[in-house]
Amino acid sequence: MNKWYVGVDLGGTNIVSGLIREDGEVAARDKRPTRQEAGLEGSIRQMKDSVRAVVERGGVSIHELAGIGIGSPGPIDPFEGIVIAPENLPAWRDVPLKRIFEDEFGIRTILDNDANMAALGEQWKGAGKNAADFLCVTLGTGIGGGAVCGGKLLKGFNGNAAEIGHITIDHNGPQCPCGNRGCLELYASATGIVRWTKVRMAIESPETALTESPDMTARTIFEAARDGDNFAREMFDRTGTLLGIGLVSAINMLNVEVIAIGGGMADAGDLIFEPVQRTILERGLPGVREKVRVVPVELGEDAALLGAAKNAMET
Amino acid sequence: MNKWYVGVDLGGTNIVSGLIREDGEVAARDKRPTRQEAGLEGSIRQMKDSVRAVVERGGVSIHELAGIGIGSPGPIDPFEGIVIAPENLPAWRDVPLKRIFEDEFGIRTILDNDANMAALGEQWKGAGKNAADFLCVTLGTGIGGGAVCGGKLLKGFNGNAAEIGHITIDHNGPQCPCGNRGCLELYASATGIVRWTKVRMAIESPETALTESPDMTARTIFEAARDGDNFAREMFDRTGTLLGIGLVSAINMLNVEVIAIGGGMADAGDLIFEPVQRTILERGLPGVREKVRVVPVELGEDAALLGAAKNAMET
Repeated sequence: MNKWYVGVDLGGTNIVSGLIREDGEVAARDKRPTRQEAGLEGSIRQMKDSVRAVVERGGVSIHELAGIGIGSPGPIDPFEGIVIAPENLPAWRDVPLKRIFEDEFGIRTILDNDANMAALGEQWKGAGKNAADFLCVTLGTGIGGGAVCGGKLLKGFNGNAAEIGHITIDHNGPQCPCGNRGCLELYASATGIVRWTKVRMAIESPETALTESPDMTARTIFEAARDGDNFAREMFDRTGTLLGIGLVSAINMLNVEVIAIGGGMADAGDLIFEPVQRTILERGLPGVREKVRVVPVELGEDAALLGAAKNAMET
Repeated sequence: MNKWYVGVDLGGTNIVSGLIREDGEVAARDKRPTRQEAGLEGSIRQMKDSVRAVVERGGVSIHELAGIGIGSPGPIDPFEGIVIAPENLPAWRDVPLKRIFEDEFGIRTILDNDANMAALGEQWKGAGKNAADFLCVTLGTGIGGGAVCGGKLLKGFNGNAAEIGHITIDHNGPQCPCGNRGCLELYASATGIVRWTKVRMAIESPETALTESPDMTARTIFEAARDGDNFAREMFDRTGTLLGIGLVSAINMLNVEVIAIGGGMADAGDLIFEPVQRTILERGLPGVREKVRVVPVELGEDAALLGAAKNAMET
């Protein structure tokens, strides 16, 4: 008899679910655009429908589930199972999602933040397989992080561990909305590379095919770099170096063996991975720096589903 | 029937042992100055004698021990139980201390670094009691760290976790011997405060009772500050602020609830604790910064003994 779990990934854009066997096989998937206009009740109903859909598709019945795992954007309270106030889900404020699911399905439900769930999924079945000490970093608008230490998800005392985007790399740096200064996220996110590219273009008038425009994105800069634009390449090199500097601090705290990088910026490949690896070799501790591997994430959308299921298994 | 352990703390100055009951009661202690002039064989013999001494004093026989735990200055290999190359024990190079002890006593022996052992001890019986997520920081010549996460010692993939002294706070900062730049240790250690005090005195000629002298120590600066010297007070404030900045990065990674600070600099009390706490409140993540407590260590020399015994219990 197999044990079955459902993993759900709540996002501002999509709600994705998976029916997951205890060995990590994804037996069924469901994906639906989050109908934010339907309000809180509407999106909770979508989540419930999505759970029912994957269970049906997999030919299992709800009461056979051994657990449900949910990944949600933070901040959340993983111990009470409450979604506190995600930036991209404005209708969601202090929602006791664990209790709502347990009342609905009668199945034990475990909630954690989406970055942690992606990290746990990648460590179980993806880029961190066989690495008991693993960090997963998502470079998007901000920088998200999740860590597995000694084979266990690093949660912290109130569910706020692995906030690698808010490691300081320059204590005199610009103010971050989080309250800190010079946070990694201000430099090495997709938003960060655009901001610093504009700053340098304004100050230095470099020779570049890029034009100052409000539409500039990390992708525009990537495409220019890929097409040989030296200034755009330099901006990626600079961004990767600063990311590497932040990762060295993370490595020195967590002593992780593998770091997986995902999010839009990771699509830039060597343009970002090469300076990251070079910086770790230059700045890491001897005996550690030679052994750390930096790799792309592997599982895409499945990472958070698998992680959420694994979290339900282990909690 | 009680279970008994021996904890040993190997240092460049002293070798300290304790006979420790499974509930954390220290039944006997032994302390002897490390005879470095007797070479490697000599200090290993001292360690063995010290173990025998505490066991005898406690009225237990060696073969009744459930385990021996050793704390050693790093770098070490905790998995193989090897002391690699401690700076202050120049005769010790790649010493398989675990095997040497197991051959001698026939008792399972577990080795880890002294900063980790102090952290584990403080978390078990001292400043971190009841905090499953705990960081212990020692401000000495350098900055040592150990962390307990979710109730377990944070070891990392090759025993180099919680190297908080080598978190970057200024990526353009001075070169650190570790290979990195702008490491916390360069600013907030006892060595760091002396260095920056001298730099400021050379550049700014501040009004102060301190005199530029090769004998200046953190204690000299502390005594001046305690006696009302404004420049010396400012140096402590600055040092505590920079320490707080490094600790915020650590908190954002580990989400620890309690941070204990030890080492000579901690004797400065509020001169160092106040700016640390203020900085955490200013720069920490909302929802976390209000909850983190920063306290002095409590156990002194016993911390590493208790931690080493606990490590033997749990490994």
